Amino acid sequence: MTNHPKPTEWIGDAKTGYVKLLDQTQLPREEIYVEVRDFKTMWQMIKQLSVRGAPAIGIAAAYGCVLGAQKGEFAHAAQYLTTSRPTAVNLFSAIERMKSLTTDNPEHLLREAKAIHAEDASMCEAIGRHTLPLIQHDMGILTHCNAGALATGGIGTATAGMYLAHAEGRKICVFAGETRPLLQGARITAWELSTVGIDVIVICDSAVASVLREDRVHLIITGADRIAANGDVANKIGTYPLAVMAHRHEVPFYVAAPSTTIDFNCPHGIAIPIEERNGSEITPLVRTYNPAFDVTPAELITGIITETGLHSPNELK
Amino acid sequence: MTNHPKPTEWIGDAKTGYVKLLDQTQLPREEIYVEVRDFKTMWQMIKQLSVRGAPAIGIAAAYGCVLGAQKGEFAHAAQYLTTSRPTAVNLFSAIERMKSLTTDNPEHLLREAKAIHAEDASMCEAIGRHTLPLIQHDMGILTHCNAGALATGGIGTATAGMYLAHAEGRKICVFAGETRPLLQGARITAWELSTVGIDVIVICDSAVASVLREDRVHLIITGADRIAANGDVANKIGTYPLAVMAHRHEVPFYVAAPSTTIDFNCPHGIAIPIEERNGSEITPLVRTYNPAFDVTPAELITGIITETGLHSPNELK
Repeated sequence: MTNHPKPTEWIGDAKTGYVKLLDQTQLPREEIYVEVRDFKTMWQMIKQLSVRGAPAIGIAAAYGCVLGAQKGEFAHAAQYLTTSRPTAVNLFSAIERMKSLTTDNPEHLLREAKAIHAEDASMCEAIGRHTLPLIQHDMGILTHCNAGALATGGIGTATAGMYLAHAEGRKICVFAGETRPLLQGARITAWELSTVGIDVIVICDSAVASVLREDRVHLIITGADRIAANGDVANKIGTYPLAVMAHRHEVPFYVAAPSTTIDFNCPHGIAIPIEERNGSEITPLVRTYNPAFDVTPAELITGIITETGLHSPNELK
Repeated sequence: MTNHPKPTEWIGDAKTGYVKLLDQTQLPREEIYVEVRDFKTMWQMIKQLSVRGAPAIGIAAAYGCVLGAQKGEFAHAAQYLTTSRPTAVNLFSAIERMKSLTTDNPEHLLREAKAIHAEDASMCEAIGRHTLPLIQHDMGILTHCNAGALATGGIGTATAGMYLAHAEGRKICVFAGETRPLLQGARITAWELSTVGIDVIVICDSAVASVLREDRVHLIITGADRIAANGDVANKIGTYPLAVMAHRHEVPFYVAAPSTTIDFNCPHGIAIPIEERNGSEITPLVRTYNPAFDVTPAELITGIITETGLHSPNELK
């Protein structure tokens, strides 16, 4: 097993236990774990991005429901927690699953929350196993943003194969694109991989082309926010140019994500709505354009790795 | 004439005059002009990047020599100012030119410094005139880093055509790549073009691909730090991927630079040494790789614009 960092962990029994939560807003400067003992604090932690990444948010919210049940306020907690973030599908699906038990017994609820957590960890592990054959000793691997352990209940998606390869003793060097404007690569990916001893080098997003040209990268793996039926992938802004440069320099480009990320109702990438975020994330002083995601066409993607295996982007059905 | 901002300006006569210098380290938050009245302060201003950009540094140093001569210390000033920055060729050539007068008469020296300044302004103007036919009304133009008025004695190189087109009443929208890690695009280019009323939108370097795909950019113009004899161009990190994306989206990609930037002793881009700067510019907390420049192959460049005209990158001789 890998000793990857854990964004959320339930400590103790159902009636008196609490959530040990890593405050990711303080990374990489400080590794601060907060003891979350009531659902309103959990709401605040999700709201302020102390825990982020769709799967990790879902797990945190499920545990938050248990904290509510401890004080006889399960229904209120479940409703309240849905208001913490607007878009993460896992937040709503996890809370729905807790409500579907139709009980406010903390022990039953904790068992379900732990099941949600364990299923996510298994999904990550399966993605890792399917990624592992792609990773050879002494490889340079590039990733973008954070689709890592800190975004999930396990060893991450894009990072899953890296953790497993490292645990097996394969030496790898991971290039982490810093990921402007919010710097998830420089702050979170670099930190989490370093904690287990993986060699990480942070580069500006504009230097990706240079490390590819210098033959220092042999494999690229990113996560995905949404995958269209035709294999087009929406992911953090900067993924599309990364795929174009990979194609030019003949470096394989893989996307690792749970199969639930595939939206069969979405025919192709053009149909995926792209959130434009506040320009103050870039600079508060001038006019800006700040799309949060871009779309990588299927033709530039070598393969899509889910918990069910390695798929061609053109054969997702 | 355009009312572009001026990084350095001589005020008054040769014997009692001084340099009015824009402190670029305070941009875009504050527009502070400093009165520089002695060569040691000028050395400090160059050293701390209050004035930057090779041509602007050369002009500032030439004026600094006059300030030394005002106090009977011309030789000392000339020698001292060469130690302010290590690489800008213009710094050394401007000081050599001042020394070649073999006089310490402030009036003669000021005349020469003003000539250096005026020649640079003419060079910019000529580049602008050769760029102007490429710019149509309602165009979106993308640039990277700052090859603007604040780096030169005139209207800049990459920006020269933009200033002239705007002064003629052609409406343009300039996309400025923010240019990590030092953000010259977001801080300096956006500010200087805004001062004359040009519409500027700052984007993350990783969002360049998105604005090209959205057909919002019709022309790309960057500067150059060094041009090899075969037309390969070394420029700020992020220029090469920009050229690759331009090629994919069929957007013309031009480089604007004085002809002195062409190094006929350098056969091709691979021979250009790339400075690696301190990683703390990216983040102080983890291992980084921070190349300051990259090389764009001639095949991706539509044309190179110098003061002598528009050239094919393959026919520089």
